[in-house]
Amino acid sequence: MFLRNCWYVAAWAHELIDGKMLARTILEEAVLLYKSETGKVVALRDRCCHRGVPLHLGRREGDCVRCMYHGLKFDPGGKCIQIPGQDVIPAKLGVKSYPVVEKDGLVWIWTGDAARADPAQIIDFPYLRDAQWKGIPDYMHYDANWLLIVDNLSDFAHLAFVHTKTLGGSEEYAYKTRPVAIERLPDGFRVERWHMDAAPPPFHRKVLPAAEKDQHVDRRNIGHMHIPGIFFLESMFSPAGSGSEKGNREGTREYRNCQFMTPETRRTTHFFWTYLNNWEGSDHNVSRSLHQSLIEGFMEDKHLIEAQQVVIDADPDFELQAIASDAALSHFRRIFSQRVAAERADEATTKAATPVAVKPHQAGLSA
Amino acid sequence: MFLRNCWYVAAWAHELIDGKMLARTILEEAVLLYKSETGKVVALRDRCCHRGVPLHLGRREGDCVRCMYHGLKFDPGGKCIQIPGQDVIPAKLGVKSYPVVEKDGLVWIWTGDAARADPAQIIDFPYLRDAQWKGIPDYMHYDANWLLIVDNLSDFAHLAFVHTKTLGGSEEYAYKTRPVAIERLPDGFRVERWHMDAAPPPFHRKVLPAAEKDQHVDRRNIGHMHIPGIFFLESMFSPAGSGSEKGNREGTREYRNCQFMTPETRRTTHFFWTYLNNWEGSDHNVSRSLHQSLIEGFMEDKHLIEAQQVVIDADPDFELQAIASDAALSHFRRIFSQRVAAERADEATTKAATPVAVKPHQAGLSA
Amino acid sequence: MFLRNCWYVAAWAHELIDGKMLARTILEEAVLLYKSETGKVVALRDRCCHRGVPLHLGRREGDCVRCMYHGLKFDPGGKCIQIPGQDVIPAKLGVKSYPVVEKDGLVWIWTGDAARADPAQIIDFPYLRDAQWKGIPDYMHYDANWLLIVDNLSDFAHLAFVHTKTLGGSEEYAYKTRPVAIERLPDGFRVERWHMDAAPPPFHRKVLPAAEKDQHVDRRNIGHMHIPGIFFLESMFSPAGSGSEKGNREGTREYRNCQFMTPETRRTTHFFWTYLNNWEGSDHNVSRSLHQSLIEGFMEDKHLIEAQQVVIDADPDFELQAIASDAALSHFRRIFSQRVAAERADEATTKAATPVAVKPHQAGLSA
Repeated sequence: MFLRNCWYVAAWAHELIDGKMLARTILEEAVLLYKSETGKVVALRDRCCHRGVPLHLGRREGDCVRCMYHGLKFDPGGKCIQIPGQDVIPAKLGVKSYPVVEKDGLVWIWTGDAARADPAQIIDFPYLRDAQWKGIPDYMHYDANWLLIVDNLSDFAHLAFVHTKTLGGSEEYAYKTRPVAIERLPDGFRVERWHMDAAPPPFHRKVLPAAEKDQHVDRRNIGHMHIPGIFFLESMFSPAGSGSEKGNREGTREYRNCQFMTPETRRTTHFFWTYLNNWEGSDHNVSRSLHQSLIEGFMEDKHLIEAQQVVIDADPDFELQAIASDAALSHFRRIFSQRVAAERADEATTKAATPVAVKPHQAGLSA
Repeated sequence: MFLRNCWYVAAWAHELIDGKMLARTILEEAVLLYKSETGKVVALRDRCCHRGVPLHLGRREGDCVRCMYHGLKFDPGGKCIQIPGQDVIPAKLGVKSYPVVEKDGLVWIWTGDAARADPAQIIDFPYLRDAQWKGIPDYMHYDANWLLIVDNLSDFAHLAFVHTKTLGGSEEYAYKTRPVAIERLPDGFRVERWHMDAAPPPFHRKVLPAAEKDQHVDRRNIGHMHIPGIFFLESMFSPAGSGSEKGNREGTREYRNCQFMTPETRRTTHFFWTYLNNWEGSDHNVSRSLHQSLIEGFMEDKHLIEAQQVVIDADPDFELQAIASDAALSHFRRIFSQRVAAERADEATTKAATPVAVKPHQAGLSA
Repeated sequence: MFLRNCWYVAAWAHELIDGKMLARTILEEAVLLYKSETGKVVALRDRCCHRGVPLHLGRREGDCVRCMYHGLKFDPGGKCIQIPGQDVIPAKLGVKSYPVVEKDGLVWIWTGDAARADPAQIIDFPYLRDAQWKGIPDYMHYDANWLLIVDNLSDFAHLAFVHTKTLGGSEEYAYKTRPVAIERLPDGFRVERWHMDAAPPPFHRKVLPAAEKDQHVDRRNIGHMHIPGIFFLESMFSPAGSGSEKGNREGTREYRNCQFMTPETRRTTHFFWTYLNNWEGSDHNVSRSLHQSLIEGFMEDKHLIEAQQVVIDADPDFELQAIASDAALSHFRRIFSQRVAAERADEATTKAATPVAVKPHQAGLSA
């Protein structure tokens, strides 16, 4: 059910500060992440190949990690390079290592076929490295399948009901506005929606100067969703009637938001995000307020989405009914399913079926 | 495993006061219950037909309810009557609604074939609407299959051991008394047991006037169990030797007890009950004391019955051994199984096998 | 997955003091243990044969136990000897009773074919009844399969990394020492390891007289593991260079340790142990300190072993890789698997396949 041959966000780089050994399950594989002494991020399967003890209970030694059960030591590539009390080390002994790339404050991981891991495929979000754009990167954990979060982001109409008093502003948003365009892209979708001549929504109003708080705005949201679960949002608030729909940007205040959904398991998700503005100047309280408002809004989503997951768990045969605004959602699920099916078919072709014999040293373990 | 074409108690009517939206799982279906503005009880499947969000997280609007994810609105019959931002609503779009009847303070629900839901089939317990009979209606939750509670009520001998110091009075009850009659009825059973010339059991002694506390009584219990899990108990305490067995009721104190077992899931149960007396006059402390005593007694049952469930869960092949006093219990399980089997056979005949295709908008949800 | 035709430790005898009814699950069977009035230990299946209520919720009556649901009474052999309100008791009605033997402070149980339960097969550890050897018997519960604890005890090299600051002393132990001998025995293994001329490990140093604390020692560990999971350890600390390897015992301080692993379930284990010394004289603080040190050490093991279990649960296909020091471990798992396979084959031969009909009094219970 997972798409493996693609890059996922595994962590914010700051989570690995000071040699921290971070244990994180990604696509149902336990992974150990740490920065080696040379500053390179290492990602290893978080279990010793010998008896399965998690390596995050071990000890980092320079660029390597040592399992603290019988002392096996692994290099950053996962190769076992020492077994205390044993002179010869089998050449193939080791743990899986994952391609990882640190870029713009994010650590990306590739859990599929390492030979195909091309860093050039990492989707770029230039605002993350642009000093003009400021924000506070953060993390949330969801007790829900990542696709339910993709669904949520595919239709801005939910702002009206879920986020009325936080990110939305009014229920009118659902009745008066419609997507200007829903573009079905080969790797996702693009959705654009305008809300003309309305009061600024609460999260935006809070950070506005007093003189602007009661001025109506023309609001434009453009969302891009990319497989496997990467969402970029551009938001613009222009003075009502200033002609922003014709390209005039004068007086416009803008935001850039990125959200990265990485499956932890088939029913839980890592959610990395940051919400950026380019106009706070030296007043970091703007970032702090937006960060707080977004958490409020995300908690509203989380409450509903985790309830959805419980409903679906309780009755896997439940047949959801589509409405018109599900166009983007339906497109995404269709192309995502196709990609997964293609990957599975590819695996079946290349993988020879090798029968596995139970070895004495593990007999009886899985009773 | 559930019998669906029959009425179950879903709630006490007072649980729906002031527009309260009550979420309750009944026969493994999540149900939303509320009283509409016209005072009629509405029961809907508690999940939006669109993306599965529970409707109890939504908003009641007059007689209707609105899902607060994308704003779909449903009328009391479950029909979707508004989709914000969409002009045409598919005629069949909606959620399941359940036949419900409010009667004598209870809300009854029918989860099976709605066409067969005949309110005349609701079993009558006239004492519930008779102002002369007073009590305090209440609710308990059991972590056990409802049939284990039916078992419990089928043999009063357990009063001797489980409820010695509360509802029973002495272990003698199990040795000295036997059922006068066990009647096997088409929809349940009737059991009658006399205990002559004994001290009043603690729950009864507590509410007696001082002069009666130490007088022996002739005790008569008559229990009626009805499919699917409805129990009525008539209890009479007459002065010992006053000839109550020949019909003399002088000096007799009587109670009426009803208990309604509604499966929440196959291993949990809703338990609604009230214990009525017709002689407290203006002293409501009698009801309060009886209510408290009954809770004490029910907790004794619950402790054992939930332990039984754990034992059965741990070893589904465990073969229970019958004893003589299981006659009522065995009869009930036999006729109940027959009714369930008949209902399943009936469904198989009328339901055409329709293969369900996975739609894009739900692909990947059940991983 | 369990070996049933052998003796397991069910309890320390002191756990049954004063008529205590001890409920303990052994090899996935709920067992009730108690000492009868005659002082004999009784072990019965902890569920009434009638409706499955646990007997530990009942009442001990002399040598018997009474279920406190409907009052059935069972003798120490498990036979039902009273049903209140019923004159005739079916001859075969009863619960399973288990052969049990109390010996040297331990209660041993046999859960397999009772006809084969020969007390002479109980493995002897004479130090348990020798007044010269003192210690504090104790119990721990593991959330892990018992074989993972066997693994742990099969290779002393783990002392170096897991117990550096408690039972081990230094990481050098893993590099400088190797097993003198690994003996593959028909029912287990024997491992011996010497560590010459080293500082005494912390647990030993703590109890040494001041004059000895900084003297180097020659350390000898001899471990015996027996099927199904019984471990004896002899430890000797001699003055460094005193010739203990040639048999000189002068100045040697010795310990005897026994550990009994009894499966509770396939993924949890009862762990009984005591750590004995023969030189504390009247200073019981030596035992107290050793007891405390061993708990510290065992908690270090438990932390890793329970993490192993989680790893194995998460991926039952995980293929463990053997290293040289797994010789004892691999031998044990091989002979244990053979014993289990032989027992299963034996059962298949002797057990006639009897189809079980569902009786009305239990119909519908396992929904």
